[in-house]
Amino acid sequence: MSQATSPVKLSEEKLARAALTYLAEPGDPALGALLGICEPAEVLAAIKADMLPGTGPGCGDSPASRTALGRALGRWRVRLPRLPDDEGIAGACSDGIRLICPGDAEWPGVLDQLGQARPYALWLRGNADLHVACVRSVSIVGSRAATGYGGHVAGEIAADLAEQGWAIVSGGAYGIDAAAHRGALAAAGTTIAVLACGVDYPYPAGHADLFAAITAQGLVVSEWPPGRHPARMRFLVRNRVIAALACGTVIVEAGERSGALNTARHAANLGKPLMAVPGPVTSAQSAGCHRIIREWGATCVTRAADIIELLSPLGLPAALAPDGGPEAASVPVSGPPAPDSGPSRDDLDIDSARVLDALPARGGAGTSTIAVDAGVDLDTVLRCLGRLAGYGFIERGDGGWRLRRHS
Amino acid sequence: MSQATSPVKLSEEKLARAALTYLAEPGDPALGALLGICEPAEVLAAIKADMLPGTGPGCGDSPASRTALGRALGRWRVRLPRLPDDEGIAGACSDGIRLICPGDAEWPGVLDQLGQARPYALWLRGNADLHVACVRSVSIVGSRAATGYGGHVAGEIAADLAEQGWAIVSGGAYGIDAAAHRGALAAAGTTIAVLACGVDYPYPAGHADLFAAITAQGLVVSEWPPGRHPARMRFLVRNRVIAALACGTVIVEAGERSGALNTARHAANLGKPLMAVPGPVTSAQSAGCHRIIREWGATCVTRAADIIELLSPLGLPAALAPDGGPEAASVPVSGPPAPDSGPSRDDLDIDSARVLDALPARGGAGTSTIAVDAGVDLDTVLRCLGRLAGYGFIERGDGGWRLRRHS
Repeated sequence: MSQATSPVKLSEEKLARAALTYLAEPGDPALGALLGICEPAEVLAAIKADMLPGTGPGCGDSPASRTALGRALGRWRVRLPRLPDDEGIAGACSDGIRLICPGDAEWPGVLDQLGQARPYALWLRGNADLHVACVRSVSIVGSRAATGYGGHVAGEIAADLAEQGWAIVSGGAYGIDAAAHRGALAAAGTTIAVLACGVDYPYPAGHADLFAAITAQGLVVSEWPPGRHPARMRFLVRNRVIAALACGTVIVEAGERSGALNTARHAANLGKPLMAVPGPVTSAQSAGCHRIIREWGATCVTRAADIIELLSPLGLPAALAPDGGPEAASVPVSGPPAPDSGPSRDDLDIDSARVLDALPARGGAGTSTIAVDAGVDLDTVLRCLGRLAGYGFIERGDGGWRLRRHS
Repeated sequence: MSQATSPVKLSEEKLARAALTYLAEPGDPALGALLGICEPAEVLAAIKADMLPGTGPGCGDSPASRTALGRALGRWRVRLPRLPDDEGIAGACSDGIRLICPGDAEWPGVLDQLGQARPYALWLRGNADLHVACVRSVSIVGSRAATGYGGHVAGEIAADLAEQGWAIVSGGAYGIDAAAHRGALAAAGTTIAVLACGVDYPYPAGHADLFAAITAQGLVVSEWPPGRHPARMRFLVRNRVIAALACGTVIVEAGERSGALNTARHAANLGKPLMAVPGPVTSAQSAGCHRIIREWGATCVTRAADIIELLSPLGLPAALAPDGGPEAASVPVSGPPAPDSGPSRDDLDIDSARVLDALPARGGAGTSTIAVDAGVDLDTVLRCLGRLAGYGFIERGDGGWRLRRHS
C-alpha cells in the first residue's frame, strides 16, 4: 500500500503528526509533554534516531524525566518497523479519509482544553466539517446493553436536538451510542462517531452500515491511524475526545461500571456541562445515571429542551446555529406559554379558595352556611362569592350558591 | 355528644387550644401572631367577647393590624355557634382520640420550625408516641394517580426504612401515600398519617381499613377537630405539617401539578432535606420529581440506603434509634464491601492494561508481538506479563502467552 500514488500532499508537520499516531498510543503523557516544547518533526526524528530530543532548559533534562523519556522512546521505537513511509502515510488519505492537525481550519479549538492530552492529529472520514459541527454539539453516550427504554429515549432526544441544529457526538457502540447516532440521522442532522480504532475499521462489525450512513451525513473520527484495531484501553482513552468535542455530555443509561461513566468523568474534569437522563430505579442500567446526578452533580435532564436550556443560557440557540433555518428559531425552548384564560384554583387568593372549598359537591348552600364552613366572615364570603362567580367557578341557583359544571 | 361523661380532664390552656382548632383554620396568620403574644385562653375569651385581645405594645395596635385582627375575629366568630362546650371538647377525647399541645411530652419540638404557622394543637389517634416517632422519620408522599412502578418503589423504600427503625410519615391518600403507609406496616414499622380532616373521619372512605391498621401500629394525626370534613385548601395547609414532622421528605411520583410538590416546597422552605425518586422520563407521573431534582436541587434517591445516608451524615443511624435493635446497627448503609480479591481490569496500571489488551482473543502470542501491539518496550512487557500471570489474567502455554479462561 505504500507504493500507491497519492493525490494528497502532506506538509512535513502533518506527516510527522500522522507518523506519531502510528507510533504512540493517544494520550501518552510523555509525547504530550514533548509536543509542548518540540516540533512534531523533531520528535519523530528523535524517535527514529533513538536520541532524546532537545537538551535545553524545559526540555525534560532532569534525571527522572530523562529516564521516563528514555522509556517512552523505547515504547515508541518498538512500532517503528510497522511505520509506513511518507508515501504510505499520504496514501492512507484515500477513500474519503483525511488527516487534520492543530492549526488546520477544520481542527476544533475545543480540543486544546485537553492540554497535553490533546490528540496528536485526527483521522476523519465523512462529509461534515468537524470544526463547524462542534460549535453546537452534544455528546450522548451510554450502555451497550441498553434497554428498550434507553434506546427509545436516546433516539428521541438525539433526533430532537438534531432537528434544532445540534450535532450528536457518540462512540459508535451498540446500545445507546447507536440509538443516538440513528436518531440524529433520522432527523437529517449531523452526527459524529468517535472510534477507538481506525476510521476504516468497522467495529463493531454489525455497525458497518451505520458507519457508512454516518460518513454520508456526518463524520467518523479517530485518533488511531487507518487499519488499527480497537482495544479495551483505547475506548477509555477515546472517551476524553468525545467529552472534549461536544458542548456538553448526556448519559442515557449506564450501569454502575459502564464505560459511559468514564466519559462523564472526562466531561466533569473538563468543566463541561454533564447531564444524565433518569430511568426506573428498578433498572440496573439507570443506576449509574442516578448516581452521577446524586454524587457528581450531573443535571437531571428528560428531553432535548432541558439540554438546550442548559447549553444555551442566553436563550439564543438559533443565533449560533451553523445551519439552523428559520424553523430552528421558532422552536420553543421551555414549552408553550399557558393560554391567557382566567385563574385556576391554584391562583385564587386564600379566602376565595376557602369559600370555593366550602361549597357542597352536590346541590347548593346559603351564604351564611358557606361562611361557617369556610371559616370567613360574612363580608368576605360575599366578596369572594362574587369573585368566584365572575371567574366562572360557581353560580347562583334556586338552592343557593353551587359549583358550576363544566361540560 | 357534649353530654357524654368524659374520663379526660383538660387544662384551661388545652381546652382553649382545642377550641381554637374548632374556630380557626390551621395556619391562620392572624391567630398565629396572636398566640405568639397572648395566652390561648385570652385569645378564646376575646373571640367570645368580640373584643380585640391585648392593647399593649407588640399586641398589634397599629391601625392596619387592628383592622386585620378585627376581620379575623369576625372570621372566627362565625363558627362560635357550633363550638362544643368544655365537656363536649373533653368528650371528643374518646375512642382512643387524644389532644396534644405545645409543652406536652409528646409534642414534637420540630413543629416549632413552623414559627407562627405552628399547629395550635394536634388531635391524635393511635398507639405510637408522636415525639419519639418523629426523631427518626421520613415523609414519603406522591401522586394519588400513582403508576404500578411508583407504588412498588414507594412501598419498598418505606418497608426498608421502617425495618431500620425509621417512621414513615404520609398523607393517607390513594396512590403513593397509601403504598408508603402499607410498606411500613408490612415491615412492622411505625407509620403516621397526617390528615386534612378529623382523625375519626375516614377520608378517602376506601382507606377506613388502612387508617384502622395505622392506628393500631402508628398514629393518625390532624390539626382539625374530630368530625371535621376535608377540603381542598386543607390538604395544602396540612402539607406543611407532613414536611415539618419528618427529618426529610421524599417525593415518589408527582405530576407537574401534583400536591406532593407543595409538600416538597414546604420541606425546602423549612431547610429540610428534600429528595425525589426518579422514574422513566416517558412517564408524566415522574415529571415533577425530575423537575425538582433539576431546578430545586432535590437529591436524587433510588433506595432506602440513599435516604439514610443523607439523613444520617455521621453514619450512626442506629445510635439515634428509639427502637433500633441490634439488627438495625448491622445494616450496611452503602452496600456491602467488595470481596477482598485481586484487582479487576479497571484497577490495573496503564502498562499492564495495555499489555492485557494486546493479547489475542483466541490462541497465544509471543512476547515481542505483544510488545508491538501494546506499544510498550520489551522490559515493560516482560514485567507486565509476569504481573498479569500472577493476578490470574493470563497464562503461558505452547503458543505463547494467552488469556486465561475462567469457568
